[in-house]
Amino acid sequence: MKKILVINPVADSRWNKTDGDYLKKIAREGMVVEVVNIKKGPKTIESFYDGAFAIPGILKIVREIKNQYDGIMINCFADPGLKSAREVCDIPVVGPGESAIILASMLGFNFSIISVKKNVIPMFEMKAASLGLSKRLSSVEYIDMPVSELEDNFNKTEKAIIEAINKTIKQNNTEVAVLGCTGMLSLHSGLVKRVSIPVVEPAATALKALEILIDLRISHSKTGLYMTPDVGKIIGY
Amino acid sequence: MKKILVINPVADSRWNKTDGDYLKKIAREGMVVEVVNIKKGPKTIESFYDGAFAIPGILKIVREIKNQYDGIMINCFADPGLKSAREVCDIPVVGPGESAIILASMLGFNFSIISVKKNVIPMFEMKAASLGLSKRLSSVEYIDMPVSELEDNFNKTEKAIIEAINKTIKQNNTEVAVLGCTGMLSLHSGLVKRVSIPVVEPAATALKALEILIDLRISHSKTGLYMTPDVGKIIGY
Amino acid sequence: MKKILVINPVADSRWNKTDGDYLKKIAREGMVVEVVNIKKGPKTIESFYDGAFAIPGILKIVREIKNQYDGIMINCFADPGLKSAREVCDIPVVGPGESAIILASMLGFNFSIISVKKNVIPMFEMKAASLGLSKRLSSVEYIDMPVSELEDNFNKTEKAIIEAINKTIKQNNTEVAVLGCTGMLSLHSGLVKRVSIPVVEPAATALKALEILIDLRISHSKTGLYMTPDVGKIIGY
Amino acid sequence: MKKILVINPVADSRWNKTDGDYLKKIAREGMVVEVVNIKKGPKTIESFYDGAFAIPGILKIVREIKNQYDGIMINCFADPGLKSAREVCDIPVVGPGESAIILASMLGFNFSIISVKKNVIPMFEMKAASLGLSKRLSSVEYIDMPVSELEDNFNKTEKAIIEAINKTIKQNNTEVAVLGCTGMLSLHSGLVKRVSIPVVEPAATALKALEILIDLRISHSKTGLYMTPDVGKIIGY
Amino acid sequence: MKKILVINPVADSRWNKTDGDYLKKIAREGMVVEVVNIKKGPKTIESFYDGAFAIPGILKIVREIKNQYDGIMINCFADPGLKSAREVCDIPVVGPGESAIILASMLGFNFSIISVKKNVIPMFEMKAASLGLSKRLSSVEYIDMPVSELEDNFNKTEKAIIEAINKTIKQNNTEVAVLGCTGMLSLHSGLVKRVSIPVVEPAATALKALEILIDLRISHSKTGLYMTPDVGKIIGY
Amino acid sequence: MKKILVINPVADSRWNKTDGDYLKKIAREGMVVEVVNIKKGPKTIESFYDGAFAIPGILKIVREIKNQYDGIMINCFADPGLKSAREVCDIPVVGPGESAIILASMLGFNFSIISVKKNVIPMFEMKAASLGLSKRLSSVEYIDMPVSELEDNFNKTEKAIIEAINKTIKQNNTEVAVLGCTGMLSLHSGLVKRVSIPVVEPAATALKALEILIDLRISHSKTGLYMTPDVGKIIGY
Repeated sequence: MKKILVINPVADSRWNKTDGDYLKKIAREGMVVEVVNIKKGPKTIESFYDGAFAIPGILKIVREIKNQYDGIMINCFADPGLKSAREVCDIPVVGPGESAIILASMLGFNFSIISVKKNVIPMFEMKAASLGLSKRLSSVEYIDMPVSELEDNFNKTEKAIIEAINKTIKQNNTEVAVLGCTGMLSLHSGLVKRVSIPVVEPAATALKALEILIDLRISHSKTGLYMTPDVGKIIGY
Repeated sequence: MKKILVINPVADSRWNKTDGDYLKKIAREGMVVEVVNIKKGPKTIESFYDGAFAIPGILKIVREIKNQYDGIMINCFADPGLKSAREVCDIPVVGPGESAIILASMLGFNFSIISVKKNVIPMFEMKAASLGLSKRLSSVEYIDMPVSELEDNFNKTEKAIIEAINKTIKQNNTEVAVLGCTGMLSLHSGLVKRVSIPVVEPAATALKALEILIDLRISHSKTGLYMTPDVGKIIGY
Repeated sequence: MKKILVINPVADSRWNKTDGDYLKKIAREGMVVEVVNIKKGPKTIESFYDGAFAIPGILKIVREIKNQYDGIMINCFADPGLKSAREVCDIPVVGPGESAIILASMLGFNFSIISVKKNVIPMFEMKAASLGLSKRLSSVEYIDMPVSELEDNFNKTEKAIIEAINKTIKQNNTEVAVLGCTGMLSLHSGLVKRVSIPVVEPAATALKALEILIDLRISHSKTGLYMTPDVGKIIGY
Repeated sequence: MKKILVINPVADSRWNKTDGDYLKKIAREGMVVEVVNIKKGPKTIESFYDGAFAIPGILKIVREIKNQYDGIMINCFADPGLKSAREVCDIPVVGPGESAIILASMLGFNFSIISVKKNVIPMFEMKAASLGLSKRLSSVEYIDMPVSELEDNFNKTEKAIIEAINKTIKQNNTEVAVLGCTGMLSLHSGLVKRVSIPVVEPAATALKALEILIDLRISHSKTGLYMTPDVGKIIGY
Repeated sequence: MKKILVINPVADSRWNKTDGDYLKKIAREGMVVEVVNIKKGPKTIESFYDGAFAIPGILKIVREIKNQYDGIMINCFADPGLKSAREVCDIPVVGPGESAIILASMLGFNFSIISVKKNVIPMFEMKAASLGLSKRLSSVEYIDMPVSELEDNFNKTEKAIIEAINKTIKQNNTEVAVLGCTGMLSLHSGLVKRVSIPVVEPAATALKALEILIDLRISHSKTGLYMTPDVGKIIGY
Repeated sequence: MKKILVINPVADSRWNKTDGDYLKKIAREGMVVEVVNIKKGPKTIESFYDGAFAIPGILKIVREIKNQYDGIMINCFADPGLKSAREVCDIPVVGPGESAIILASMLGFNFSIISVKKNVIPMFEMKAASLGLSKRLSSVEYIDMPVSELEDNFNKTEKAIIEAINKTIKQNNTEVAVLGCTGMLSLHSGLVKRVSIPVVEPAATALKALEILIDLRISHSKTGLYMTPDVGKIIGY
């Protein structure tokens, strides 16, 4: 029996149940999945600013529970706090953005990320570049809808995503689509039937990446990038 | 119940049993693993030349069995035939080289590949470059021992690998080691206890990567790089 | 008369006075420089973890005072919160890391960054890469001394920095040195006399970069990467 | 008197005569050119799969004749077996794809490759990337016609190629065109009169590249990438 | 009191007065700016050919006056002679092209350069690449007007530049515009009011970059790229 | 009968005879080779400064004779004036630096350039980068001897070059050596017998590259990078 903690890095508990149900179905047998959210921070993450206020809450949880779980998943495509979380624990920590982009790179020559507002374009171009995959990213598309409205009208959201995917297939010969927001997870099963290329859902991908790490009993190196910091220097948190 | 076929791309059945035992232990519950080898081809793969004679045999198997399995693993770090195998089937196909290098990139800033003879240096530098990970590859080390001798004297081989890992830790601040030959798999459990950085074993990693793909019901795109070829044009095979 | 706010992103006021004195001497005539520190956060910034706890305090200050100043400097080589600060204001915001690395690229073919602990190697390799300057960074050197001890024994610190510079000159033909910590600023005037290559001090460089932006009346674009976020979504801060 | 062997890597002798006539006209005085084809393998090469079945036949010829010739040309833009052929011989081996792309890079800022079916886009993007010339490749265009039909209607094929060249000139300011299939060689002399930019014909270019190597008495290094393999390990071929 | 020499690298004195007036307004207090032009060379610089004939005149001035000034600015976006000028003097030398491109990289994710004739596209793509900023350059636009006509009809020129900026905003989500010719400087103040993104004027930017270097008392390294050459070997100049 | 003009870009005729004799031996039958030098300019080219004074003389010759020859070779590894010469003529123009580096990239995974003084390191690193071959350049070595002394003591020079080659073989697993100065051409035939890797001589390579272009009747594109400039704007030359 292994235990995974999924941290929803938003100060809102409303997705805990649905995300938990979704991820539990995807988890391998014997893998216990729990979902928590942070107490202080943004309601959704759509900017560096939002991310900045999410990270202290994430790290607080990571420090408190790291001995009770076998792995941690930070449930947001922007991967807020991924590096600092790895610094403060030895158990594997994964993020949907990194996991999904890497998986997509194995499925075809190029991929496109479909996300919410216009600022995602530079944001995810930079994320792909930091993973060495700039040349494989054919485009970042945005549906011009904030995260909070994704679930207001499923049909409208699905239609917008399908249009974005078809646009990049036509313009860029895109071979793989990556949903660039974990808030789109409930749309995934419908989408795969309506487009002609594979569609990567990042939350599920991150969960599976974490299972691999746990099952292979391997975690991030602690000798360089993720060296354990002196955590006793923080005042006021 | 899902079924994976592991293809040992060598004309030698002697590793089928041990590889099968090793991989079955690593496979998740409900995943059936079978190992076969090719009938014609090289005894081991240590050059582009060896790889070239392995690929027709691999593709022959892939074409014959692709409807009977849920995924295929080509069991050699050089990933011979990975692209052409993906062309001729719809089910996921993975290779230990690609899988292990990508996993290593998630575990630290840089990684070193430890392999057999000197020609692996340019060979794996090129492999990392093709994955966009040149800057993350701190070095390729070789122990100057052919694949066929890896198991002659376990202590000697283990010692050589540990020396190579410690050398690159010292010279390049390497944070993660990748075993650059699936023939080193039996040494992995011993190695992890004797070095200070994580050690990625590629065969196990590839198996787990394949499980992810199967469990996520996703496979490579068929609209571009891996477009299905006309297979009726081959004469004499 | 123009006004610059320097934010020391540490929960410690002890550097405010010396940093202020140093920067006021460097500022052009007519440029008023004020230094403040954050109230909650790390005592020093030496990890992603430290940075994570510094950013909310930085952003709080930026939001409160952005109409009272002509430019903002975040006084730490790691440039914590640089991107999110630019999101929430229209006035120019600079960081010593970005400014110093870019300046160094204009002074020679390659440069080395000299900083504190071993984890700076991947951290600053990644920073240079994100600025497109990987090939120009000849090495990151560390003197293995925490920020808090830099001023304990000036001679010892200076000696360690000089040794690091001379090492990279010899090994890498390094043409320019960049001090990789704003806590080294008081050592700069002594260092320049003792080494054979130019030495970039990042705090002074950032101040000058900010003066340029203010004097050219130009600031970051608000149409993409630094688009203004919805700041009303943060709970509990 | 020097001798070049041109290997048509297809199991079809029908191009031997015309290719031989074409190349003999281009060869310098004193250079004897012979063309052979492989006995087993694909009829044309349009996928990785096709290439895989061509390579053993190529290598068989290379091994048998390498002492009787001064240089070898593998006559297909995909350069099948180029690396492995270099491993098993000391005399120079060239391929039209590598030769033509490199030549194009000397003739202008950017170039476009015009080839047959859609899957050539990722295939040749990857080839350019492996040569370090990604930024110079302005596009890969395809005329959506299989190799076997290129000669069915010369006017139609020529028209399609001219349209592709003019499209990339207009869209990408392309300065140089590269014919991305040696099956287009008979069209070259007509094309150069009908488009406004230089057109590189890869078979002729490869022949000339090979002449250079022979005349300079230089060949590939045998100390690394192309180290001679143990060829005694192949079973069943 | 510090003195800057601005070298107009054209054999025409007609811009000296207006450039001087413009730059003096931008210079910080206490910075004396003088403008001279070369005696022999091109009337304007619009090709590598033009640049080649400008450089000897630039270097002649640099050698003669280098002890009388604190810094030198070569006033042309193409930065002719920047490297060789740095070789023959110890005082800082800047160019508008390098300075403006680097500044633009700090103001947004991507930038576009707006310049004169079609050949600027590859020319400035190569300049951005040499600065490591290829990925940040979203496009090079040209208004198809030679330098000599830029001031013939200000409204027409301004209109053409605005159209080019709006085109790249729409097509490439460009966040920052860089004027790719110092001959456009008089148009800058009007342009900034008429477009929605920041516009970098390179001559002013270079002047400010030079002030930074002078005020920080730092100059280019003389130990590598800009090592002082033996200047006694030139015959006939 | 085809005619090649070799331009020695130095104001010294002493190498014309020996270079001519050397190149005539290498030229294919029917290729007439003439060597001239520039009248004004540097005695040797060892810096950007030297190059700057060589280029006007080169361009003067190119413009005067371009209708009388079939191709032009600028005989210096630094390739001075290569781009501007291509602008002002339609016949092919080659340089030894570009030609030799490209050839070396076809002969092995990596190559090292062996040249004269320390400043060649950044100079040729930048040249390789501009050709997209940074990753293939394993090192630049210098023998610390000015061009003018290369022929003073052949044994000493040869010994220094061999030591440099052996050093980079050992340290960097270098597979190919490139002589980084055309002044080393007389040493080439001796060197190839004394080192274990192929040695590329750039003058011979450039001549052969030019022969290819002439024989293929192809030259650089005139629609972009090498667009013909208005040559009537130069005053005083």
